[in-house]
Order: sequence, then C-alpha cells, then structure tokens
Amino acid sequence: MQRIWSVDLPAHVGERVALAGWLHRVRRLSHVAFLILRDGQGLAQIVVDSPEHIELLGALAPEAVLRVEGEVVAEVQAPRGVELRALEVSVLEAALEPPPFELFRPHISALMPTLLDHAAVSLRHPRQRALWRLAAVSVEGFRHALRSLRFTEVFTPKLVATATEGGANVFGVDYFGRAAFLAQSPQFYKQTLVGVFERVFEIGPVFRAEPHDTPRHLNQYTSLDAEVGFISDHRDVMAMVETAIGGMLAALRAEASAELRLLEVELPGDAEPFPSVDFLMAQRLIESATGERVVGEPDLSPAHERWLGDWALREHGSDFLFVTGYPLAKRPFYTHPDPLRPEQSNSFDLLFRGLELVTGGQRLHRHADYLAALAARAMTTEGLEGYLEAFKHGMPPHGGFALGLERWVARLAGVANVRETTLFPRDLQRLTP
Amino acid sequence: MQRIWSVDLPAHVGERVALAGWLHRVRRLSHVAFLILRDGQGLAQIVVDSPEHIELLGALAPEAVLRVEGEVVAEVQAPRGVELRALEVSVLEAALEPPPFELFRPHISALMPTLLDHAAVSLRHPRQRALWRLAAVSVEGFRHALRSLRFTEVFTPKLVATATEGGANVFGVDYFGRAAFLAQSPQFYKQTLVGVFERVFEIGPVFRAEPHDTPRHLNQYTSLDAEVGFISDHRDVMAMVETAIGGMLAALRAEASAELRLLEVELPGDAEPFPSVDFLMAQRLIESATGERVVGEPDLSPAHERWLGDWALREHGSDFLFVTGYPLAKRPFYTHPDPLRPEQSNSFDLLFRGLELVTGGQRLHRHADYLAALAARAMTTEGLEGYLEAFKHGMPPHGGFALGLERWVARLAGVANVRETTLFPRDLQRLTP
Repeated sequence: MQRIWSVDLPAHVGERVALAGWLHRVRRLSHVAFLILRDGQGLAQIVVDSPEHIELLGALAPEAVLRVEGEVVAEVQAPRGVELRALEVSVLEAALEPPPFELFRPHISALMPTLLDHAAVSLRHPRQRALWRLAAVSVEGFRHALRSLRFTEVFTPKLVATATEGGANVFGVDYFGRAAFLAQSPQFYKQTLVGVFERVFEIGPVFRAEPHDTPRHLNQYTSLDAEVGFISDHRDVMAMVETAIGGMLAALRAEASAELRLLEVELPGDAEPFPSVDFLMAQRLIESATGERVVGEPDLSPAHERWLGDWALREHGSDFLFVTGYPLAKRPFYTHPDPLRPEQSNSFDLLFRGLELVTGGQRLHRHADYLAALAARAMTTEGLEGYLEAFKHGMPPHGGFALGLERWVARLAGVANVRETTLFPRDLQRLTP
Repeated sequence: MQRIWSVDLPAHVGERVALAGWLHRVRRLSHVAFLILRDGQGLAQIVVDSPEHIELLGALAPEAVLRVEGEVVAEVQAPRGVELRALEVSVLEAALEPPPFELFRPHISALMPTLLDHAAVSLRHPRQRALWRLAAVSVEGFRHALRSLRFTEVFTPKLVATATEGGANVFGVDYFGRAAFLAQSPQFYKQTLVGVFERVFEIGPVFRAEPHDTPRHLNQYTSLDAEVGFISDHRDVMAMVETAIGGMLAALRAEASAELRLLEVELPGDAEPFPSVDFLMAQRLIESATGERVVGEPDLSPAHERWLGDWALREHGSDFLFVTGYPLAKRPFYTHPDPLRPEQSNSFDLLFRGLELVTGGQRLHRHADYLAALAARAMTTEGLEGYLEAFKHGMPPHGGFALGLERWVARLAGVANVRETTLFPRDLQRLTP
C-alpha cells in the first residue's frame, strides 16, 4: 500500500491508508495510546489500541521512523478533523538516542547555541520547519512575480577578483595561487546583464566578512537581487519592489496558511504604493518628534528606522516605508545622483516594520559618469574593466534592488534572531554544522 | 507612450507603438534604411525612410540605445511577420565605440578567450543569449516538477569546515582566521534535511578546485540537487530524475520555442522510463563490441560513455541511459551498497547523449553503517559530527541526485564547450570578468 501524506488524510475518511514519518510524541492512557506522527508535511493523530502496538511504541525513543496503516476516522478534536485508527505499526528505523530537547513542546526549550549546534534535530521542530517554509514560499512568490514581468533568472560568479562594495568585509580565497574574494553581491553582474536581458534576477548566497555578532547579521545570507533597464528613475524600481513583495505575500497566503497559523503570523497588507518619505524630511520628522539632533547626519540609525516604522504604521497604516534620497556620499560609487539635488541620490531603502529590508536605487549608466564617480572617491578602475566595458557599449538608464531572505522571514514572523530563519547559519563563531 | 516588447508586435498591427532597445544592425538602401532593434526579448525590423532619421542612424555605432515610435505593419518577410514603420527615432544613449566583434552575424567570429574577455558584449549576441534562456527555463521546469511532488526548496551554507567529497579539490577560505572551504556540494545538508522535510531541492553554486582545463569542467557551476526520503532503493530516485528532466523538457517546449528554433535544437523525447543498464553488463557490452578489455575496470571512461550513448540511441531510441550498480569502492562513503552484491552500489549515473549528466543513488541511513563505511576508508568522523547526528535520530531510507545545469544546456544545444553556456565562467586561468 502506497503511503499518503498526513495533510491528505481528510480526503480519505473511511478508507484504509498508510502513513510514514517520525514518532513525534506518544501519550499513553489506560488502554489506548495517542501517537503523533510527523511527516514532511504535517502531523497526524493516530489512535493505537492493540496492547502489542502500545508496548512497541513505549519502547521507542522519539524520532523513530514508523509506518502505520489504519483507518481514517473523522474526529473534531484531532488536527484537520481526522485521526487514524492504527491497524499495523512497523518500525522502519529506531532512533539511537532521544533528541537533546523535546520536539513536541510548542517551543524548543534550549538556548540558541544548543539549538544551532543540534540543527539536524532542532530543524525538525514544527515551528522551526514552518519558519523555513515561509522562506521557501516567499522565494517562489518573488520569482513568480518577476517572471511574469519578463525577468530572466541568472546565476553569476561567487568567486571574484574584485570586491563589489569596497575592499572591507570580504572573505579571501586562494584561487590556484591567486587572490580571489567571495562575492558580496551580484551587483556588477546584474548590471552588466541589463545590457543582455534588460530584466534579471538572481537568488543566491552572498558573503559578508563582517566581524559583528548581532541578531540581524550573518556572514552568508540569501539575497534576492533584481535589476531592470529602461527606467525613468528610482521610482520605477520602487514599483518593482512593490510587485515583488506583493508576489511574496500572495504566495504566502496561497501556500503557507498552515505555517502562518502555527506561527501566529499576521501578514502585512500589501496595498500599493507603499508610503514613501524623503531622507531629509525623515530626519526633520524624527528631530521635531524626539528633540534629538539628527538633521545633517549622513545615515539613519537602527533606532531612527524603528521610529520611522512606527510613524508609517501610525500615519499611513503601513508596515512598509520607503526612505528615498539618501546622501550620495553614503551610497556606493555606482549610485545615480538626484539630478535636482546632486548631494542626494536616486536611491532608497525599504523599511519593513522599522527594519531595513531592501536597498536599491537607480545606477549610473554612462561610462564617463563611472570614471568621474570613481575618481571622486579616489578609487581606480583596476579590476573593474570587465564591468565598465558594458557602459562603453550602450546601457539604458537602469536600477535594481536587493532583499535579504532570512531577514524578511524573521521580521515577518516576529523572530528576534535571524539565525532562527536560516538553515545552518554562519557567523563570527559558527562554521558548523 | 509606454514602450512594448518586440515579441508583442504581432498583437498591435495597425497601431502606433513605441519600442526601445539596442541598435543591432542598420542596412541602408537607396532611400530607406532597415534597422534591426534588439530588446530584452527579441529582434524587431524597423523601416526608416525619413532622411533625417537615416542620417542619425548612420552616425551611430552598433549598440546605441534607441527608442522608436512607429506604426506596426504586417510584412511576411520580417521576423514574426510584422515590421515597424518608424515615425520618431531618438537616441537614449550612444555607444562610445563599436563592439569588439559584430553581433549581427549568425555566430560571433572570435576565439573563446576573446568571447569570454568581452562577456559584457558577447552575451548580447542572440545565440549566446538564447543559450542562457535554455538554462533559465530548464531551472524553472525542474523546480516546477519537484514542487508538485512536495519538495521544499532550501539554501545551505557554501562556507563549510569539512570537505564533503574528500579532501582534494577544495578551495580554502580564510574564515576569521580559521580554515574553511567552499562547499563542493550540498550533500551533507540535503541529507540532513530529509530528516526535516523528507524531500528537498537546492539550486545553487558548487565549487571544485579541479586543476583541469577541459571543455566540460568549470570551477564553479550551478548544481540542481535533490534528495528524497522513504524510498525503497535507488530506483525510486531514478524515477524522480525522470520526473525532473520531464519537467525541464516540458518547460523548454512551452517557454523557449523561439530559442530552440534559433539554436536549431532538437529536444530529446522524454518517454519514461529511461533505459537502464547495469555497470557490469555495460562493460561486457563494450568489451564484446570493441574487443577492448574493460571488464574489471573500476569506472567508465568518457569514450566508453560515448559508446554507451550511441548504443542507447541505437537499441532503445533514447538520448538518455541510466548506468546502475557502480562499484562501491569508487563512490563516496555515504553510498548504499547493493544488498545482493555488496561490492556494487545502489548508485547510478545518467548519461545524456553519451555524457555523464546526473549522479545519484541511495545513501546509507544508519548511524552504525556510517561509522563502518568511514572506518573502511580510513576516514575519521572529525568535522562530520553535525552531519552524523541526523542518523542517530531516525532517518528513513533515502537517496538523491545532482545535475549540472551548464553541462545540460551544452549537451542539449550541441555546444562543445561548457563555457559558452555559463554566465562569466570560472576556470583555471579565468577569474574575470
């Protein structure tokens, strides 16, 4: 008999079916045992009343791999309104020892390092698993939204000769005796590929050798990058961000309702357009509300971003807020200035519930503008030849953005530490498992 | 007026529309010029008859970025049966200099190193661009096929403490003063995640520090990896490979017909199941046909794989051939032996037109079996603790496979060098652009 998935039980009431999965929990009453079986999709409640089967289960450690045949019965108290009355129980693989923490509790009762050390087991917890499903479904929604706008998916080199975002914070690699770096972003490649496909996106790992140990930084994370040609200015890119996030939210609503319920996540409304505030105006708002002297500062602090997030929710009823017009000097050399205010830039951040989620903007597209921007920052063209070549051969006005996947899920689910929304995170201390 | 894409012209016959893109070619006759404009999706033929516009175009280098408004007219001779009669032509950005090779010719007339040095331009050639589209569409078909079987997409660390496939051929990374490596595959992680999601796939970069300079090896490539639990043996994994490749071919048929036509690609039939031959039987076939002594050799040479590819086409009418039962000693330590022939393994390769495309098989799933397999190869468990932990806590029989994206497209399109199907390839000599 072919096994079915736990989530498909309601379609089989009255039938005999087989389930397979892990022994999540056994609760033993006087003459009956309730087995919770966990498979790749969900949990199933199984009633076991044969003394032989009850004894078998009693001897097993949690996480034993089981196969159970039985009859599907409607039961309002059980998950999804059905349970299985066990007729056959067989052990496919016993567990050698019990897990280092109890997986059936609503939360794992362990500190973060223990949870991460034992990722092979902690990721099996329904909550941890649901967090990653939000990531996987979000990614699919992002891709779907961009593909329908004729974006082409690309995969670009992660081993590069030149740091994309300046020389700091790169991991060095020995490349057959030559010095190479791990790519901090696909920035140069996605811009070059605007010359090829006009619209590209890449979903892949990026590497930042930042020596910070904070709850929101990791040394490898998954970046959702997009770049688009033939724009008027950064506002066209912002519209693409709205479309991409709209796609992520739509996918979550359609495909992750069980996970959202389990995690008690309330999805933000995705009413477009998202509200937007100019950087200088944002500083004035903060200054007049808090009395703090912030006008003239070159950037927003995390505390200021939180203040703005609260303001956006209060004033606009929005979990999202674009901040536009960041000072040019604080943005990378390829950033396009605001034509009317050359000290400001056609760039933006998107705050999500008061945390920076997306960075983007219009890029320079003329070769001469690149040479001038590099010279103004005392940077050379060395190592940038292959990138700058694109701008000699006709490049349209273009721009793009990048969104950090793990940070998105953490903020969405109200998880304080981005390590919880990452499979096997990498940080200053942690290179395993 | 909003611009439309070249490929949408046929839907607008009789209307005035705007196109935008690159000056691909201008052919001037006595009183008229034919402009071929290239946008992100295709080419459009534009008839220009104003002397002023003809002069403007004559002064431009190829790859200038243009915007053209005009009337769409049916014209059997033109691509897609339509052309645009230009009314307005404007230059968004001129090109500083002509490309290093002519992009309007059917093939770029340049040697591979020149083509790769100038990737920013050579990728704009319709043929190079079409090759990548085959990759992008294949990836989407792969994902679609696996998602419909309830596989969960994952992203795993590329910075690891232990080489997955043995200590050779890894790139070293300085990780905050500690030795780390770039992941050669997501093998350990995808197996661990079978314990979490049962079915997972990952599409991402893998890194091999192989010091070979061949037309079919690269030092970074895109691996399509999948792993699945609750299998009977490797044949269940082979069925998943067939489903995945069936999904890739279906996507190509549905979404890449123009590219397949341009590249004159004939898609293989995807009749399932693919034919299969046992490794020892394959050796006997080769030996009896060629007289070469191959029985007893531990592996198949590329020449033998080509011979088997021809045989599969001749005997089974198939571009695909599974070879099963490879000698256990030649496969990685996590490979499951064939229970009936312990010297052979429950592993397979899939040959596509005589070239190894996929490697896969059943894995060990018992902790004790791992300890024995490592000991038999004089390997220690050092650095494998986080991986081996999964097998202490109940793991079902499982297996998986990996498929190299760039190699797939090269073989499909009959391209001899995998560098042509890679965006910005990395090899022994090449770290830029």
